[in-house]
Amino acid sequence: MTSTTPSVTAPVTVLGLGPMGRSLAEAFLAAGHPTTVWNRTAGRDRELLARGAHGAATAAEAVTASELVVICVLDNAAVEAVLAGPGVAEALAGRTVVNLSADTPARARQLAAWAAEHGVDYLDGAIMTPVTTIGTPDAVYLHSGPEELYRRHLPTLTALGPGHSYLGAEIGRAAAHDLALLDIFWSAMSGYAHALAVARAEGVTGRELAPFAQGIVAILPPIFEALAGDLDDGTFSGEDNPLTSAASSMAHVIEASESHGIDAGVMRAAEGLARRVIGLGHGEGGFIRTAELLNPRA
Amino acid sequence: MTSTTPSVTAPVTVLGLGPMGRSLAEAFLAAGHPTTVWNRTAGRDRELLARGAHGAATAAEAVTASELVVICVLDNAAVEAVLAGPGVAEALAGRTVVNLSADTPARARQLAAWAAEHGVDYLDGAIMTPVTTIGTPDAVYLHSGPEELYRRHLPTLTALGPGHSYLGAEIGRAAAHDLALLDIFWSAMSGYAHALAVARAEGVTGRELAPFAQGIVAILPPIFEALAGDLDDGTFSGEDNPLTSAASSMAHVIEASESHGIDAGVMRAAEGLARRVIGLGHGEGGFIRTAELLNPRA
Ligand SMILES: NC(=O)c1ccc[n+]([C@@H]2O[C@H](COP(=O)([O-])OP(=O)(O)OC[C@H]3O[C@@H](n4cnc5c(N)ncnc54)[C@H](OP(=O)(O)O)[C@@H]3O)[C@@H](O)[C@H]2O)c1
Ligand SMILES: NC(=O)c1ccc[n+]([C@@H]2O[C@H](COP(=O)([O-])OP(=O)(O)OC[C@H]3O[C@@H](n4cnc5c(N)ncnc54)[C@H](OP(=O)(O)O)[C@@H]3O)[C@@H](O)[C@H]2O)c1
Repeated sequence: MTSTTPSVTAPVTVLGLGPMGRSLAEAFLAAGHPTTVWNRTAGRDRELLARGAHGAATAAEAVTASELVVICVLDNAAVEAVLAGPGVAEALAGRTVVNLSADTPARARQLAAWAAEHGVDYLDGAIMTPVTTIGTPDAVYLHSGPEELYRRHLPTLTALGPGHSYLGAEIGRAAAHDLALLDIFWSAMSGYAHALAVARAEGVTGRELAPFAQGIVAILPPIFEALAGDLDDGTFSGEDNPLTSAASSMAHVIEASESHGIDAGVMRAAEGLARRVIGLGHGEGGFIRTAELLNPRA
Repeated sequence: MTSTTPSVTAPVTVLGLGPMGRSLAEAFLAAGHPTTVWNRTAGRDRELLARGAHGAATAAEAVTASELVVICVLDNAAVEAVLAGPGVAEALAGRTVVNLSADTPARARQLAAWAAEHGVDYLDGAIMTPVTTIGTPDAVYLHSGPEELYRRHLPTLTALGPGHSYLGAEIGRAAAHDLALLDIFWSAMSGYAHALAVARAEGVTGRELAPFAQGIVAILPPIFEALAGDLDDGTFSGEDNPLTSAASSMAHVIEASESHGIDAGVMRAAEGLARRVIGLGHGEGGFIRTAELLNPRA
């Protein structure tokens, strides 16, 4: 079973029908793949069944329907709970699991070990874009694990959109990238939520702030590229924007926030890090030295 | 002096020659404005003088050369220190100060009060883009204060680039927007520095991560727009991405980070806020409820 190339409409099973699992199943259906679905809590498959999906009473039954099993649940503990269900491991032997649930690299390695023990082919993956992008050119998927496995199932996965990146055989790499990107995403989102609160306290509405907020994130990409190079090369010039200036901006945010009774815990933590680097004598240096300080092995 | 419209090459004085002040002065010179410069620490004007700027021995002397005085120093405490210099207030009477230093709305109001007392016309402003953008279409400037004053000096300010936004007569509005945007910027930058450290600990280099990091910030603009509307309207649907899912992602970042001995203070603060909102019974709701929780007046 594992040596044939699946046709463009190979059957696929989707385990987990949260907002993301439902979107994945919809995209497989839309691309014409016979799609079998299952979810821990019953009833989440109603719309999918109406669109032609096959329902399954148990995870083991769902798994039996397809060589390729895509699982997308809350996290890898939830994945383990599903895989530990009655008959699931046995039904999976010789099939491929693509795990699109988000978790840590360590837990991806743990699942890969479980899969190897049970004769299950395993790819770890991550979805980097919202449910609304699934099935469109805007969707971004990361994968790591055996390259042959990735190549074999890519035609089916392409139903989810063309944006798949293979990051290497080490099974933890997709999760490592995912975590780093979630780190950036939720830090930015936390900053935005806080900014909206501070702006409102100053009489500025969300809709007034939003276009400028969009403008400020638009300046990040070239800065990200330059700083990545600086960190890799160990160059930390703060020529155009010294760390002292960054810390001063952060202090203003904290001060204005707290003057309105708005907790500034996130920015306090960020400023604390900047101040530690300044305290080490690098105030004239660039902000990215904070990454160097964070890394205990550096 | 205050009633004439300046010609496109009206003289201008720049106080403060840090990286930003120097870039501003260069742009005025490049646009043909007679430009007088001064900095607290001598010698920072060398290149500018070579390009035709007029040097001044004191801030008072520099101010006397132009109707329009642009000041760009570390913060408003530094502005106050400059304005308190010998003869400066007297020399400024009847002239316009455009303060492009970053600080809080409260401190902008304080400076406006000082200016009114001394017969000085005052506009508060903020620069939202890096020094490399100054004089180009990418530069973004925010202004607040008397509209007539803004309109009068806009032709000269346009030497810095075309991207000027007038945010209203209330003098604190530019600083309020600035702070909110710095909040987003430095939160995102802190997330990025942290992400680079975690990625490196997992064997992923900065240059490997950077393209994906650029991709993740590219998904923010439509999310920002939707969430601003949600907050303004008090709708907090987490239909596509419930807060419990966000908190779980944040917990993974913390866990992976700390497993490598990397401090996760910023993400811990962000997760704490999300958990508080979940604790209030809004786990199925959207992330932006955290902004509602932050605001004590809401
Ligand atoms: N939503 C997005 O925009 C987005 C974007 C990128 C990545 N992701 C990732 O995609 C994954 C799924 O996200 P989601 O948006 O669908 O919502 P979610 O809330 O993260 O996951 C909900 C799904 O997980 C299942 N689940 C939770 N605990 C379980 C357990 N112990 N045993 C079995 N099933 C369990 C739920 O089943 P029940 O219905 O029975 O509770 C439901 O199917 C997550 O890892 C998330 O980080 C989501
Ligand atoms: N750099 C950027 O990319 C950027 C972007 C947007 C906004 N800004 C804002 O622009 C402003 C200036 O930034 P910058 O990049 O030029 O560097 P900075 O380090 O924030 O400011 C340096 C300037 O402030 C002066 N200064 C500091 N304390 C002073 C005091 N007590 N009295 C008089 N002068 C004092 C310095 O004079 P000495 O030379 O004598 O020390 C120097 O001219 C800041 O508010 C910053 O937030 C900067």
